[in-house]
Formats: sequence, C-alpha cells, structure tokens
Amino acid sequence: MKPTFSLRLRIFNLNCWAIPYLSKHRSDRMKRLGDFLNMESFDLALLEEVWSEQDFQYLRQKLLPTYPAAHYFSSGVIGSGLCVFSKHPIQEFTQHVYTLNGYPYMIHHGDWFCGKAVGLLVLHLSGLVLNVYVTHLHAEYNRQKDIYLTHRVAQAWELAQFIHHTSKKADVVLLCGDLNLHPKDLGCRLLKEWTGLHDAYLETQDFKGSEEGCTMLPENCYVNQRELEPFPFGIRIDYVLYKAVSGFYISCKTLRTTTGCDPHSGTPLSDHEALMATLCVRHSPPQHTPSPTHGPAERSRLVSILEEAWIELDLGVAQARWWTTFAGYVIGLGLLLLALLCALAAGGGVREVAILLWTPSVGLLLGAGAVYVFHVQEAKGLSGARAELQHVLGRAREAQDLGPESQPALFLGQQEGDGTEEQ
Amino acid sequence: MKPTFSLRLRIFNLNCWAIPYLSKHRSDRMKRLGDFLNMESFDLALLEEVWSEQDFQYLRQKLLPTYPAAHYFSSGVIGSGLCVFSKHPIQEFTQHVYTLNGYPYMIHHGDWFCGKAVGLLVLHLSGLVLNVYVTHLHAEYNRQKDIYLTHRVAQAWELAQFIHHTSKKADVVLLCGDLNLHPKDLGCRLLKEWTGLHDAYLETQDFKGSEEGCTMLPENCYVNQRELEPFPFGIRIDYVLYKAVSGFYISCKTLRTTTGCDPHSGTPLSDHEALMATLCVRHSPPQHTPSPTHGPAERSRLVSILEEAWIELDLGVAQARWWTTFAGYVIGLGLLLLALLCALAAGGGVREVAILLWTPSVGLLLGAGAVYVFHVQEAKGLSGARAELQHVLGRAREAQDLGPESQPALFLGQQEGDGTEEQ
Repeated sequence: MKPTFSLRLRIFNLNCWAIPYLSKHRSDRMKRLGDFLNMESFDLALLEEVWSEQDFQYLRQKLLPTYPAAHYFSSGVIGSGLCVFSKHPIQEFTQHVYTLNGYPYMIHHGDWFCGKAVGLLVLHLSGLVLNVYVTHLHAEYNRQKDIYLTHRVAQAWELAQFIHHTSKKADVVLLCGDLNLHPKDLGCRLLKEWTGLHDAYLETQDFKGSEEGCTMLPENCYVNQRELEPFPFGIRIDYVLYKAVSGFYISCKTLRTTTGCDPHSGTPLSDHEALMATLCVRHSPPQHTPSPTHGPAERSRLVSILEEAWIELDLGVAQARWWTTFAGYVIGLGLLLLALLCALAAGGGVREVAILLWTPSVGLLLGAGAVYVFHVQEAKGLSGARAELQHVLGRAREAQDLGPESQPALFLGQQEGDGTEEQ
Repeated sequence: MKPTFSLRLRIFNLNCWAIPYLSKHRSDRMKRLGDFLNMESFDLALLEEVWSEQDFQYLRQKLLPTYPAAHYFSSGVIGSGLCVFSKHPIQEFTQHVYTLNGYPYMIHHGDWFCGKAVGLLVLHLSGLVLNVYVTHLHAEYNRQKDIYLTHRVAQAWELAQFIHHTSKKADVVLLCGDLNLHPKDLGCRLLKEWTGLHDAYLETQDFKGSEEGCTMLPENCYVNQRELEPFPFGIRIDYVLYKAVSGFYISCKTLRTTTGCDPHSGTPLSDHEALMATLCVRHSPPQHTPSPTHGPAERSRLVSILEEAWIELDLGVAQARWWTTFAGYVIGLGLLLLALLCALAAGGGVREVAILLWTPSVGLLLGAGAVYVFHVQEAKGLSGARAELQHVLGRAREAQDLGPESQPALFLGQQEGDGTEEQ
C-alpha cells in the first residue's frame, strides 16, 4: 500500500420509522428514501426500524443497481429492524441479539418483541479490513422515570464488548445507529470510552444540518412535540462513530443531517433525521506518536465511567431480585388460595363462588410464575454484564495504579484504537 | 520470542452433572473434584453443568491457592452452568447466549431455562494470545426422533461464527465442552470445518482412557443404561478442540479420560467422563508449508457440509412457520369461541355453561398466543442463521469454482487456522 493511500467512505444512517399500519406515509417515505439513496450513491446505507421484511425487499429491488450487496438482520418476534445496503461486496456478516431488552409484559412499548441486536458486516476495501456495526438500543419513553435505563446501559456494555472482541483484526471500525442515548448519557460515554470510538459530530470541522447535530427535531412533523418539550433544539440520539486501528488514520471530512423536512415533498423521510458522513482513511505516518487519549486523565475517566456503570447494573440486579422475591410471594399466595378454593368446592359450602374464583387464582399463579421466570433471567443477565464490567474495572484500576508503562499489557485490545486524526 | 519457544498447556474438561436436589452425591462429587483439580494443578479447568452458583463459590474457595483466577458465566433462568478455573490471570472474558435453545413449554427437558451459552476467556501466556471457549449445547433426548436437532445445528453454527469473529487476533484457539454431538453429527462437522478446529482425540498419538474416547460410558453408574443401549462402548459428546494461527504449531501430546469410576471411592466424578489434554504450542518453522486442509477436496467438503446445514435450517424455518400458522388458527378459534360464549352469557340461555367454558377459552387463547410468539421468534432466529450460512456457502462455492489462488481473499479469516502439527 502506498504511503499516499487514501480511502473515502460516504456513509448514510437513518432510523426509518417504518412500522406497518402505524407509521404515517410509510410506503411513500420508503419510495423517496430509495430514490434518495440511488441518487446519492453512498458506499454504505445503514437503516434501523425497517420492521417489515417486505419493505426491505422493496428497497433491495430498487437499490440493486447502485447497492448490489444487502442484508436484513432477522431476530426477535418483529425485528430486528436493522438492514444494510452496500456498494461494495460484504465479505462476512453476523449478529448478536442483546440479552436484555425490556419486559415482555410491557406490550404497549413493544421493545421486547423487537429482538434488538447489533449487526456486524466485514468489508475488504482497498486492502483494508472494515468492520461495520449497525444497532438500535432500547427506546426511552420517560426520561424522568426511565425504567429501561439499566437495560440500555447493559446493552451499551454488550455492544461495546461485542465490538471490542470482534474487531481485533479490523483496520477501521464504524458504528452507526440509533442508540437512544444522549451524548452525555452513561451508556454513550461507556460505549465510547471502552471501544475508543470517536463521534463524527464532535470530530468533523465541516458540519451542516440541524442545530447541535440533533437527530430528532421539533420541526419534524412526525415527532411527538410533547416529548421534545424540554429540548428546544431537539435531541441527538443517532450516531456515526468510528476509529482506525493498526497504523491508519481516520477523519470525518463532512457531516450532514436532514433538518426535519424534505425540500421537495415537504414531509420528512422519517421521524428521525438522517446522518450523512464522509470519512477519510489514510496511512498513519511512521513518526506518528500515539494520540493523547490514553493518558492518566483518560484512564481515570474510564475508571469513573466503569464505576458509574457498575453501580447502575448493581442497582438493576437488586431491583430484578426484588421483583423475583415479590413474584415468589405472589406464587405462594396463589397456591394457598387455590388450595382453599379446592377445599371449599369439595366441602360444598360455597361451591359456585369457589368455581368462579378458581380462574383468577390460576391466572394469578401463571402470571406471577412468568414474572418470576422473567426477572430471574433479568437478574442473571445483569449479573453477567456486571461481572464482565467489574473485571475490566479491576484491570483499569490496576493500570491506573501502575502508571502508563503497564498499560499496553493490560489493555492490549483497547489501546490500539488511537488512529483518529485530530481535527 | 526464541525459535525454540515451546508452551505446554494442561487442560481439564468435565460436564459435572451438578443439578441441585436432583444429581446424586453432588456435594461429595464436588469435594472430590476440587481435591483432584488441586492435586493435578492443570493450567485450565473448564466445567459445565455447575448449575448452582453456591457450588461454584465452594470450588472457587477450595481451588483459590492453585487456580487464582475463576469465572462463572451467568445467564438464563438457571445457568449457564459454565465456569472456569485458571492458574494464569484471565485478561478478558465475555459470553454469548445462543439465540435458540429449545422450547419454554418443554419444562421437563429444561434446556430453555438454562440459557445455554458460549463463554470466552482471553489469556496472555508467554507472549501468546490464547482464546479459550467453553460451551454446552442443547441436550439430545431421543436420537431417533430428535426435535432439537435444528436448534443444535443452529447453536453449532452460532458457536462457530462466534469463534470465527472473536478469535481473529488469537494465536491459539481452544474449545472445550459438552457439545451433545457425536463426532459425525452434522453440527460437529460444521463447527470443525468452519472454524478449522482439530479434535484432540483424533490428533493425539498418546491416548489412554475409555474405548473410542467415549465420554458417556455404560460402566458409569450415574448413566441411564437404557439410553446407551445402541452404543455398547458409550458415546463421545465432550470435546477438546484446538487450532493455532499465525505462525504457531499446536499438537496434543497426551489425552486421558476417566473411565466410569474413581479407583479410590468407587463412584465417578460425574455421569460424563473428564477429558485431560496436554497441548504443546511451538513456533512454526519459516519453511513450513500450509497444511493440506484447504485443498479442493476440503473445499468441496465444506460446501457439502454447509449445504447439509442449510437444508436442516431451512426445514427448521418451515416447521417453525407451520407452528406459527397453527397457533394463529387456534387464536382465531379461541376468539370465535369467546365471542360465542359472551353472546350466550348475555342472552341468558346457558349462562352457567358459558361462564364455565370462559376459563378454558381464555387459557386456550393465551397459550396459543404464547406458542405463536415463541415460534415466530424461532423462525426469525433460524432465518438469521440460515442467511449467514447461505452467504458463507455462496462464497465457498465461488472459491470452489475459482480454484485455490482465489481463496485467500475469500476466506481471509478462516484460512489462517492451519497451524496444527500433523501427528
């Protein structure tokens, strides 16, 4: 590879809000999205919330001449909603479904049924190995009282670990998607700190689009205005994150977002805004000194974020166990009630009442049983994530205590992601 | 690293059969297992079916002086049952829970509740990166009519893909565990062919132990003799598999198994036999030519195994969809019945009968709903695995058509695992 080697990548990301029967103007928006993608001819288009595989097949047919490679990540009951269209051949792909993703009994929120996941594509471009990840984390329905916070932190950790373990031989790592996390949220900081990924919005010098890079705007006619009331400019929850490893530099030359409306038709492509990034990968010059992202201050930041995440997961474990205990008591109560009703029915005293009450008792028992099983599973899943996080935290603290010279051995995998060009 | 570099690894693997309240002599066997592991001082002890975390904590305390590092992989409702004890520090660990793992309504088989998974440990030994995987796949309850065959094939594929994507920077890869697969079963062939892992039993020249290396023996007093009737020597379903990558050689110097009874106490450590392997990792000499595991015959074998697995997964998808449709009809029927009963109750004609029948109707509806949701999820999971497999199959066929010179580009990841010393 020549020292003047340079690779330009044009990336598109959009949460499409394509829920059959529920999302407004879905087929029209899909059509316009296809036209736009064909016109722009990106290297990669990564989409979320394409819930219907028919929509994917429609786009696949439409985009075939421009994007010969495509894949839909199939998981859960409805989803995963993730798909990708690529101008270049996809060498490999796989997916990882998140262990925790909401509660099945929260049917009106529906996330549990979506099988939220992270999809991985491996591309070989001009001799570079490019690992591309696309994901969609659990939605946030109430920021003041967010019952899914722990699950989202656990998902962010699982995502970070999946990237960490599967990208060790990649030259360039790219993560796009709807994280449902604001930039300063714990999950977002944890993900960025543990993977070493950089935020295109913060890194680029050429940004055009919405105020503060927001990807859900009050101007967008599909957005629930009440939800955005506390945020006059909107919120930034969709991201293009990247890093280069092993002697490469990556920089974000330009970043564009849509701004809540389509100048041609008047209605936007989705309730989220699209992100369009132009990335440039170059050879790192031999005299390049490591970027200052692994100094004592950064190590201390990693330790403090890991501690914060550990506390969140630990609270989650405690709460899951509380629900398990509660459901256990209800099961006990249900069994007692059933025994009592059987005795009453056999005695003949109030047989009709006993028979009438039998149904809700069995229902109570089954319901409590399901809640019990679900929350035991939740506690185990959170414990697993907490144990992984605790191990990393222990090693980060060791590295902090021992000083900079010990770090290469302790953070062999993580430390290499420092090939991001300073803007 | 010197050219004379050599690393010796002593590995122990056992499915412990440690189910609280159900497994015979559990605490006595755990105690003896601890004593044995302390006495033998292996580099790594990998255990499956340690269902109780109390048992793990007991072993952890007991083994602390000899094995300072330990980890339990927490997942599912009961499990995962997987744990590891290591003489050397564990640099990193993570886990991947299999998407499909039996059916929740098959409570008597219980696998669904176990959260079967693969655990990954990363160790740095003498400058080598060693990826160690431990797993336990879905049990086989009836070999003639195996309703879990598709799930086990999907798990084997998921395991192979997880290893493939997470071991790209490892020098040595080691997989131990209870695969619940006979050596010639589709899942086992698929796993070995796609990862390039070698079977310690087939590779070693110094084997001592059970006939044909079996790990479930009729001589073992805890084994259900009737299940082993068709196999007079027993079955081989537990494995030590390995490969070396990037310029290293690995060979299995010795392999030992227990033989159904402990010479001291008379009763065995488990219903499975333990595997004890001594592996030797050496530098590959520069003149080393690639092993003949990637010739045309091997490529054609990979294609044929992938085709076989694709057919199995495709059948699985069809069956899952059949169940979905069936459950859909039952839901329709249940709704009709409920409407009828409401009408009858309102009419006052046979109110008592209507009230009595209301309970089973609601039960039918809820049950069918759960079956529907579960099998849609199954179909999506199997479709995901089938799509991944189909992509690999396509590329394997291309490689076959194009001849050997094209293969490095097509199988960049897979082809490197050829550092296994021929015995």
